[in-house]
Amino acid sequence: MSSTRDIDALIQMMAKLPGLGPRSARRAVLHLIRKRDLQLMPLADQLQKVAVTARECLNCGNVGTTDICDICEAEKRANGMLCVVEDVADLWAMERAGVFKGRYHVLGGTLSALDQVGPDQLRIPKLIDRVESEAITEVILALNATVDGQTTAHYIADQLEEHVTLTSLAQGVPIGGELDYLDDGTISAALNARKAL
Amino acid sequence: MSSTRDIDALIQMMAKLPGLGPRSARRAVLHLIRKRDLQLMPLADQLQKVAVTARECLNCGNVGTTDICDICEAEKRANGMLCVVEDVADLWAMERAGVFKGRYHVLGGTLSALDQVGPDQLRIPKLIDRVESEAITEVILALNATVDGQTTAHYIADQLEEHVTLTSLAQGVPIGGELDYLDDGTISAALNARKAL
Ligand SMILES: [Zn+2]
Ligand SMILES: [Zn+2]
Repeated sequence: MSSTRDIDALIQMMAKLPGLGPRSARRAVLHLIRKRDLQLMPLADQLQKVAVTARECLNCGNVGTTDICDICEAEKRANGMLCVVEDVADLWAMERAGVFKGRYHVLGGTLSALDQVGPDQLRIPKLIDRVESEAITEVILALNATVDGQTTAHYIADQLEEHVTLTSLAQGVPIGGELDYLDDGTISAALNARKAL
Repeated sequence: MSSTRDIDALIQMMAKLPGLGPRSARRAVLHLIRKRDLQLMPLADQLQKVAVTARECLNCGNVGTTDICDICEAEKRANGMLCVVEDVADLWAMERAGVFKGRYHVLGGTLSALDQVGPDQLRIPKLIDRVESEAITEVILALNATVDGQTTAHYIADQLEEHVTLTSLAQGVPIGGELDYLDDGTISAALNARKAL
């Protein structure tokens, strides 16, 4: 490749992003170089800004720019319902659907014997705390319909079944499907038809 | 979406890159926030660096970090052969194949009546200059096998046919195909079997 070292290094960094490979990274970098003032400079500045300000909510694990996220801060979302998701992307997908009015708890993954992920590697102890401290009456387990997702849902249900009503998303989540791939209508239908465990 | 404004703005910028959409931009941004020190900060720095240093070669249109690119600077590549490509990505694809030892000329697009792109919007006048000033004996028209690519090749051939041997890439370039999508072996075969126009 005839580009010099700085450009090659940038292409390699971009190629590491999920969804990009070497070819799309090269395209993206050439695109950015052509649009230096309109896109490259603003993107560099914005990344810098986010690097300084982005953090995980200390309460729920959502990503935002404050120690406690907007959803956890909002009094009107303290309605006794807590929606448990694996990942921040899943929380964002639920929010785009715009039908859930309670709060979230982001586990940060699923239990996995293979990858040696136990409850303490996830945000499960904090979940159990929150059920009590936030007077939660219903926990919606909105985990992916994968083996690890369902194993995790069962583990959490075992921990919490004496304290709260447990529900899970119902119809609409396809077998093996992941929340973040679903359209808003499907998420909405699954939430409305949620069933007791 | 519950992320705050800085993060939303970053997602929107990433979603504008070729090959990325809103969903992959969200994934990429969450990934970067999780890997702040290892990926987000270095990427922001590298973009800044490239924004300052990247420029188009004044001679051939390649992208590099000097006014005249490494290939145009290299004496041993002054072998009388000039390979004309539409885009820097095509030049890079040729270089990855590693079989062409001459210099390049990047047009920066193709002629297009529809988009009102004439010879002066491309690097065609400069190409005609270079054929004389660099004592070029063969011009390889390595343009994409699209209608606009071939129209452009014919136009250039008309301008140069009295001065140099004109060739084009031969077998291996599929109908409607674009260079940057081909594997190195195909590019290599097409170059070796190039035919006189
Ligand atoms: Zn929160
Ligand atoms: Zn050059």
